[in-house]
Amino acid sequence: LASKLPKVGTTIFTRMSQLAAETGALNLSQGFPDFDSPAPLREAVARHIAAGHNQYAPMSGLPALRQQVAAKVLALYGRAADADSEVTIVPGATEAIFCAVQALIHPGDEAIVLDPCYDSYEPSVELAGGRCVHVPLALPDFAVDWQRLADAITPRTRLIFINSPHNPSGALLSRADLDRLAALIRDRDIHLISDEVYEHLVFDGVQHASVLAHDELYQRAFVVSSFGKTYHVTGWKTGYVVAPPALTAELRKIHQYVTFCGVTPLQCALADFMVEHPEHITQLPGFYQAKRDLFCDLLVGSRFRFTRAAGTYFQLVDYSAIRPDLDDVAMAEWLTREHGVAAIPVSVFYQDAPQDLRLVRFCFAKREDTLRQAAEKLCAV
Amino acid sequence: LASKLPKVGTTIFTRMSQLAAETGALNLSQGFPDFDSPAPLREAVARHIAAGHNQYAPMSGLPALRQQVAAKVLALYGRAADADSEVTIVPGATEAIFCAVQALIHPGDEAIVLDPCYDSYEPSVELAGGRCVHVPLALPDFAVDWQRLADAITPRTRLIFINSPHNPSGALLSRADLDRLAALIRDRDIHLISDEVYEHLVFDGVQHASVLAHDELYQRAFVVSSFGKTYHVTGWKTGYVVAPPALTAELRKIHQYVTFCGVTPLQCALADFMVEHPEHITQLPGFYQAKRDLFCDLLVGSRFRFTRAAGTYFQLVDYSAIRPDLDDVAMAEWLTREHGVAAIPVSVFYQDAPQDLRLVRFCFAKREDTLRQAAEKLCAV
Ligand SMILES: CSCCC(=O)C(=O)O
Ligand SMILES: CSCCC(=O)C(=O)O
Repeated sequence: LASKLPKVGTTIFTRMSQLAAETGALNLSQGFPDFDSPAPLREAVARHIAAGHNQYAPMSGLPALRQQVAAKVLALYGRAADADSEVTIVPGATEAIFCAVQALIHPGDEAIVLDPCYDSYEPSVELAGGRCVHVPLALPDFAVDWQRLADAITPRTRLIFINSPHNPSGALLSRADLDRLAALIRDRDIHLISDEVYEHLVFDGVQHASVLAHDELYQRAFVVSSFGKTYHVTGWKTGYVVAPPALTAELRKIHQYVTFCGVTPLQCALADFMVEHPEHITQLPGFYQAKRDLFCDLLVGSRFRFTRAAGTYFQLVDYSAIRPDLDDVAMAEWLTREHGVAAIPVSVFYQDAPQDLRLVRFCFAKREDTLRQAAEKLCAV
Repeated sequence: LASKLPKVGTTIFTRMSQLAAETGALNLSQGFPDFDSPAPLREAVARHIAAGHNQYAPMSGLPALRQQVAAKVLALYGRAADADSEVTIVPGATEAIFCAVQALIHPGDEAIVLDPCYDSYEPSVELAGGRCVHVPLALPDFAVDWQRLADAITPRTRLIFINSPHNPSGALLSRADLDRLAALIRDRDIHLISDEVYEHLVFDGVQHASVLAHDELYQRAFVVSSFGKTYHVTGWKTGYVVAPPALTAELRKIHQYVTFCGVTPLQCALADFMVEHPEHITQLPGFYQAKRDLFCDLLVGSRFRFTRAAGTYFQLVDYSAIRPDLDDVAMAEWLTREHGVAAIPVSVFYQDAPQDLRLVRFCFAKREDTLRQAAEKLCAV
């Protein structure tokens, strides 16, 4: 069998989580919380399952949940998205990204990704018969290099991926960035996938600059988010896409044959919880900022160097003062095996990583005691 | 935006379920039970959610559930499939089919489908850049016409879809059919997707002829099944694929970027339930055969003509003695609107349906009172 994805192996997230499990290391690699979701949310699932809400959801998602998403989008970003024609519930943000790519990319088309980026973008484009053009973000702060982005556009460019808050760096796009992007694609046939799964994890009082709040960009965009990240339930695999009606229609044509629909009782429970606990979202930045600060305050005593993440639940650290001889893949393994803390190397998010990249990523979506234990081990490195 | 699936509209399942809801008709259209799943299974989900099993599952599925699948496959079909390298848990059989197609089909390849067939096969092939060649099953009993199938094979054929028990007809492939198929593909570079989601719904004492029990075919096959159908939880969107290690490896490369993984607490609960209630599967044929017979016995008093379904939870009926003037799409709508029973037209499962097809499909995965009410309405037609 000739492989459709010959370059692809097992994702780094699977590999590092497995290594953490094998070695008994604290798992700060793959991004997921080690604390639980709110009790009322979990109880709501049990209630809906007991009440018999166990058959197919509508293909586009439970109407009550689509309405809650529309209400949130209006409240936070001022966009009056129509719950029926602009909001789709999907089994996870990864599926949403995959389906949006299939809707946009025809064979021979090009998509621009800003490296480092999430590892599903490129295979999704390749499976659609397209090709990714990689534009590195500018180091050390992972800002968009607008000139390089402009230079990468060709007549075949049909799609640009953006991701803010940015995994793995935590960097944010500003409103001014979105304006520059709008100017860049204005007279071109280019669409956007805006991966905003960490939309509620933005710190230090900054407002998330969502594509949903940008009228011009929104007309060309699939905006993807994740209940898993927002409600501490990555294993529920439930997300959503907001896009203008014509784009939503094309997305749904794909989605209905990729998975057909998401899980019913989880959608019911999320809808209830969003109605009953609107404070969850508003408290989230403070909740995660406290974790970031706890972890970073403790790491100040270590030989790792870092700038605090502006968003996401990931913290990058530079280890060049410790083991400059190790590349980041070797460093992540060494930290896991020798120091009992699993991390994700940053080079795997690149097509061509800078040779001197000495960065690994820790996930701080962890209980206070986990973060304290991890920091203690890392301070001993 | 140029559509990737220009021919595709909203699936008939969504449309008929919506029409049933709007008109208040009994919904015997889309295939799902109107009774609930076993209480211990539902309680197991609540238990796992409360216990905090809410983060990402392994990409290939929860090991305990893969082991249960492997144990079942050994017990029922005599195949010692390896839980690690041959079993993958997926978010629904539709996703499994989609991923298997993406793994097999390169641009320009051909796939053979036997019409009538499930509506996701063709768009999955088209999105991979392939083309479907349609071979009609022989009427009236939906048997494979082996000569036509042989004639449809070209040097570009890479994939044949088979589906037994067959949706919408309930027809079964026999062991002899599998042998003929094996002879047909023996010296060719052709793989199989064997859609066996109704594997446990085989009646009248017949044994399901699974590709898993056929050594030669299995070497070329992705065998797809569904927990949703087997445990009365279509809305849980959890299924599995069994395939030889080399095929499984390629499937997983796709799956890890399409959805990454299925829902954790549902996988935990299904694994527990399979251990604790092995009788569920053995009782299933009798359970559904009683529903088929109840429904059919009552319909004997109607002007519909039918042969009892050999498998699945679907019953086809011929309405040519009632409204020969209506095509089946019009008939399904008329039954829904005028007689309060929603059905699925059979022509939508065809590329080129026979002009004189006068068949609609009813789902009998319903409570006794639903089936009695539906039959009463249908006898009045
Ligand atoms: C689907 S596993 C990846 C989780 C994640 O987004 C990350 O760790 O970056
Ligand atoms: C995913 S909705 C389709 C359900 C089904 O398999 C059918 O009704 O044929």
